[in-house]
Amino acid sequence: MSQLNNFDMIIFGATGDLSMRKLLPCLYQAHAAGLLHPKGRILGVSRSALDTAQFLAKVESDSKIHVKKNFTDELWNSFIQRIQYLTVDVNTPEHFGQLSELVKARTETDNVIIYLSTAPKFFAPACKNLADVGLNADNVRIVLEKPLGTDLVSSQEINTDVAQYFQENQIYRIDHYLGKESLQNVLPLRFGNVFFEQVWNKDFVKSVQITIAEQLGVEERGEFYDITGALRDMVQNHLMQMLCFVAMEKPKSLGADDVRDEKLKVVAALKPMTSADVDKNVIRAQYTDSGSLKGYLQENNVPADSRTETYVAIRAEIDTPRWAGVPFYLRTGKRLAARSAEIVLNFKEQENGLFGANPNRLVISLQPDETISLKLYVKQVGSGLDVQPAEMVLDMGKVSDDRRAEAYELLLREVIDGRLGLFNRRDELEKAWEWVMPILDNWAVSPIKPYGYAANSWGPKEAQDLLARDGNAWLEDQA
Amino acid sequence: MSQLNNFDMIIFGATGDLSMRKLLPCLYQAHAAGLLHPKGRILGVSRSALDTAQFLAKVESDSKIHVKKNFTDELWNSFIQRIQYLTVDVNTPEHFGQLSELVKARTETDNVIIYLSTAPKFFAPACKNLADVGLNADNVRIVLEKPLGTDLVSSQEINTDVAQYFQENQIYRIDHYLGKESLQNVLPLRFGNVFFEQVWNKDFVKSVQITIAEQLGVEERGEFYDITGALRDMVQNHLMQMLCFVAMEKPKSLGADDVRDEKLKVVAALKPMTSADVDKNVIRAQYTDSGSLKGYLQENNVPADSRTETYVAIRAEIDTPRWAGVPFYLRTGKRLAARSAEIVLNFKEQENGLFGANPNRLVISLQPDETISLKLYVKQVGSGLDVQPAEMVLDMGKVSDDRRAEAYELLLREVIDGRLGLFNRRDELEKAWEWVMPILDNWAVSPIKPYGYAANSWGPKEAQDLLARDGNAWLEDQA
Repeated sequence: MSQLNNFDMIIFGATGDLSMRKLLPCLYQAHAAGLLHPKGRILGVSRSALDTAQFLAKVESDSKIHVKKNFTDELWNSFIQRIQYLTVDVNTPEHFGQLSELVKARTETDNVIIYLSTAPKFFAPACKNLADVGLNADNVRIVLEKPLGTDLVSSQEINTDVAQYFQENQIYRIDHYLGKESLQNVLPLRFGNVFFEQVWNKDFVKSVQITIAEQLGVEERGEFYDITGALRDMVQNHLMQMLCFVAMEKPKSLGADDVRDEKLKVVAALKPMTSADVDKNVIRAQYTDSGSLKGYLQENNVPADSRTETYVAIRAEIDTPRWAGVPFYLRTGKRLAARSAEIVLNFKEQENGLFGANPNRLVISLQPDETISLKLYVKQVGSGLDVQPAEMVLDMGKVSDDRRAEAYELLLREVIDGRLGLFNRRDELEKAWEWVMPILDNWAVSPIKPYGYAANSWGPKEAQDLLARDGNAWLEDQA
Repeated sequence: MSQLNNFDMIIFGATGDLSMRKLLPCLYQAHAAGLLHPKGRILGVSRSALDTAQFLAKVESDSKIHVKKNFTDELWNSFIQRIQYLTVDVNTPEHFGQLSELVKARTETDNVIIYLSTAPKFFAPACKNLADVGLNADNVRIVLEKPLGTDLVSSQEINTDVAQYFQENQIYRIDHYLGKESLQNVLPLRFGNVFFEQVWNKDFVKSVQITIAEQLGVEERGEFYDITGALRDMVQNHLMQMLCFVAMEKPKSLGADDVRDEKLKVVAALKPMTSADVDKNVIRAQYTDSGSLKGYLQENNVPADSRTETYVAIRAEIDTPRWAGVPFYLRTGKRLAARSAEIVLNFKEQENGLFGANPNRLVISLQPDETISLKLYVKQVGSGLDVQPAEMVLDMGKVSDDRRAEAYELLLREVIDGRLGLFNRRDELEKAWEWVMPILDNWAVSPIKPYGYAANSWGPKEAQDLLARDGNAWLEDQA
């Protein structure tokens, strides 16, 4: 792997959780791997009145502990040489003057990255003030950390605000699922091998399942979670990205906009839902009190009458020649039976008359393990030609001895070298919100309360029924 | 697995090598596994003047040592209770009277199996004498051990002789490759899964390779081998069966004759070769003196001017809509670099413009290991979407904990229960000889002497050239 371009990275919200837990540790890993340009520099900013030494003390206590691999004192010490700190309140224009001077004084590169790791309400003032001091020139990229709004209107507002000061091709909207190599791998798997593309369509695929399952509950994040819910937290972003990679047509090239054009087409082809469709095709639920584990409504900072979903399952359809009529089942939830992220293609039953129905299945697992698993039918041992299922597995972790970077590190490397392919374009994002809105609108007024599900289960019975209606079953319910 | 039918099995050539090394040990394994009917009996016959005790002493010394697994004294002692011996000279009609009396006196079943494990010259007198005493009735099956002739005419003669006394559906012609489960598994793999059949044709497959490689030389069998050669010993039978399973169309059913009809169509569709075609598309060779290892011409009982091939490679074509124009490369040889039997499908280079040429490959290995191995291209670890090859492997030995029987045991069980599917029909066999004859005819008069190849190599350079001409390469020469 070759060294990245020289850069100055300005992290807003540098004292925050994401910065300490992910951004700085991931930059350390890139540094430790020798990928960062020797002169590449990191400027932490936040409104906290600290000097660089105080900030580094915080980095030492809050961030270093998240470097789990490849740690040496020597590398760490050389890494923190890259770091400087400046107090910047996003609403205080003078601070941006200081910021600009500092950047211009210390910059030996034209490659300036501004990472807004703050709440989105600070995006607009930050962008305006950055622009006022010229930190929105063509050599500046801006990274927007999610959540980018809570519905279509607020998302549009954020995008419009930022667009006043930055061109679309300067804007890097983060969805860390796009940094997962096993998700990116869906493209070569599909379009770089003869085996899959032939059967990757409605003639052969009976249904697709996309799951992100968490074992944890909301923990101490009740206040944030109760105004968010699983749909906003997971479906509109991560599950949608997984869906796009599975369902998209072959892009003209691997260029950022060719790939994003095809993703946009998938989201745009999602069948819009009426409120009646939502009643029928969307299941929301909350985990319930299970002895030692609190139910969602008993969690700290969660109102006792909350209707926020900790689980959602959706039956979607994509109106393209490739997929018309094939159900795409999306689901995510907290307090489920396992932690996993996976894409399942259930193939149709065979109609060959020789070996029985034997539906094949392809499981692409993003976590906990990164594997590709093909359910085949092979001859049973012994006399005759009866068949039995077998799993043919490719463990992506064993394909290469090369270091596998975390999603955030991969994305930071993409930003540093200015590649937009793994970041969401405005149109994609707003299309996704558009599709999600009828669900939010329905829920806001629906007389149907969220269903309940037990901790360590796979969600409410109603989500099983959703598939059973089509003669399908979730992976864990399959033979 | 359920118990087999009651049976009486009469083994001609019972004192011979095959009987001692394979037939009796395999019958023991079926016995040990509880598959043989409690009253199933084995009658060894040969012209040696032995009584049952003497025969059992020979079984004890010559056959028991070949029971490598599942041996216990108790099982062995109960197994040999099934065995009786009778002296029968195939040219002495009175002996058949005794045989018939013995069979009729001791038979408690209508299921009589006669296994002719003798040289084929004894088939005709044996069949006539069996018929004369009524041992060719509908309840009798006859098993013919290879070689069934040395060319088309002698094969036809043998089949005609046997057909005077037995109906085709009483005749079980052995090719032990048909007893290999990994070869049988090609049918469910192709026709019981959606992934392969879509690409199993000339639009996707660039070439097919079928290899049976041995590491041993001719050892002490020079006399037999020099009148046989690799083409008769391996190509006309085993390689042809492997070819049939790879190339056949979907049979109407798994019934014996539906499968054999489709195999026949493959052999019949093999492009006939003129003598000029043979010069161009068939490579014969002999292993040469390599220091510590003798060359073929230096082996015991091999004439110094022998032209018998210890290696043969053939470029064949199958004139069907599925395969027209796809080269099928068949090869077999002794003293090669490894012991293996495998089928390789090389897929065409991709023309997708996204991920490079990346030819996929499927390897079905019958030995030394039974595996199915898919060469895929997946994302390289790290930034970007460059791909790297990866092997997705299914180890058939790990699919089930059930005991895996040797080929001969499986075939004996098929005979006992009267299933013909894994035995060659007369028309298939003679078609195979028909296709092979121009090669034998060419070699008989060809001025081109066999090429030489070094021990532990993969054969002569000319066999590499044969593929290079088409832009192909043998598996071991591929990247």
